[in-house]
Amino acid sequence: MTGALYIAGLGPGSDDLVTPEVTAVLNQATDIVGYIPYVARVTERPGLTLHPSDNRVEIDRSRHALEMASAGKNVVVVSSGDPGVFAMASAVFEAVENGPKEWRNLDIQVLPGITAMLAASARAGAPLGHDFCTINLSDNLKPWELIEKRLRLAAKADFAMAFYNPRSKSRPEGFVKTLDILKDECRDSRPVIFARNVSRPDEEIRVVPLDQTTPDMADMRTMVIVGSSQTRIIEREGSPIVYTPRSVG
Amino acid sequence: MTGALYIAGLGPGSDDLVTPEVTAVLNQATDIVGYIPYVARVTERPGLTLHPSDNRVEIDRSRHALEMASAGKNVVVVSSGDPGVFAMASAVFEAVENGPKEWRNLDIQVLPGITAMLAASARAGAPLGHDFCTINLSDNLKPWELIEKRLRLAAKADFAMAFYNPRSKSRPEGFVKTLDILKDECRDSRPVIFARNVSRPDEEIRVVPLDQTTPDMADMRTMVIVGSSQTRIIEREGSPIVYTPRSVG
Repeated sequence: MTGALYIAGLGPGSDDLVTPEVTAVLNQATDIVGYIPYVARVTERPGLTLHPSDNRVEIDRSRHALEMASAGKNVVVVSSGDPGVFAMASAVFEAVENGPKEWRNLDIQVLPGITAMLAASARAGAPLGHDFCTINLSDNLKPWELIEKRLRLAAKADFAMAFYNPRSKSRPEGFVKTLDILKDECRDSRPVIFARNVSRPDEEIRVVPLDQTTPDMADMRTMVIVGSSQTRIIEREGSPIVYTPRSVG
Repeated sequence: MTGALYIAGLGPGSDDLVTPEVTAVLNQATDIVGYIPYVARVTERPGLTLHPSDNRVEIDRSRHALEMASAGKNVVVVSSGDPGVFAMASAVFEAVENGPKEWRNLDIQVLPGITAMLAASARAGAPLGHDFCTINLSDNLKPWELIEKRLRLAAKADFAMAFYNPRSKSRPEGFVKTLDILKDECRDSRPVIFARNVSRPDEEIRVVPLDQTTPDMADMRTMVIVGSSQTRIIEREGSPIVYTPRSVG
């Protein structure tokens, strides 16, 4: 009996943003593995076993999923957003690389999803309409010095920037330093978007000029998008439109 | 009568990657506007008028869509991939900013989609699993010098890189220069992914070490993803898995 392992993106929160491809594999799965709140989004049914696990056990969770697929199960590892962007796909492949050789020849497929920066960008307008970079601000898995280096080079390159995991409760100082670095490098009032719980009922979108941003505007459920020097604001009734033009100059 | 304008992402090609949110607005639209091959993906039905247009008329197309929405129509501008990533959303907002004031208060919504780099990354493994940047290599709308500057800074920042529009028929020399710059900056054999027609029946994925890449490996239908210095290859039967680990060092 041959199993399969799907690493599937559930999008940012709304079921309207889950692709039919992902819905189809969820409907055929025998086992669902993932972080508790993501597994909670999967509808229970006879024949389906849910395996929710806590945060920060990504490698253990991956090994468990690979073991079940090896044993012939039809396993889906669920991620929020897109599994390939700061989510479960890299963890599963780390487990494959360091695990038994036979794991390499399992049927493993990554199914893309709407990652948070695309949903946040859509709500604000089109701030990522020109060249941009995407940075995970958490320093759990990389030194802070590397984050700072990337922020300074990204500002010099005049990329728009999308930040995942901007501000954890345990290490809030990283986002304080991030805003200080950006104010130092950019020295302007380009728009910064704070998008919290995008596509969920309690969604909040704020647009703040860089020089008026403060660290408390973000938490771990916030996606932060910083415009480039070219990013524009269209004022109107209600919230403004933020977009980066296709051409420069 | 109040119209609405949706700017909707159709994903990279397969209908399995179109979100239910996009399908719902297509089913309620009166008018569909977009580049010929994308409009061709929408099913015809009574009450729906298709307005296909040629490439490089993005602002004219946007103004036409805005005029119809102002006149009370329910208009969908269709884009490939995600409308906010090198696609129609920025063009529509440019037209809004430069158009009559009343366009600003139209009901305009951007509906995200699976952009090509996410689909390509999923097929190869997880090359974008750590910090990365996204660059449009076309120099139609920006000077080549800016592209070169961004490539060099992105290499110094050790970002993985995703390239849209790598090589046009009319200006093939840009991708020649891009590969030369990357070989000069990186001086290693990190994996480069050439993903052509992702999610379509004629999809092709090639993984080539940077020092063995040649410009003819890409055309305008190819998404190119360059790993960072940390990106790894897992060899196995069939095509290898390419992924960038979550942690550095």
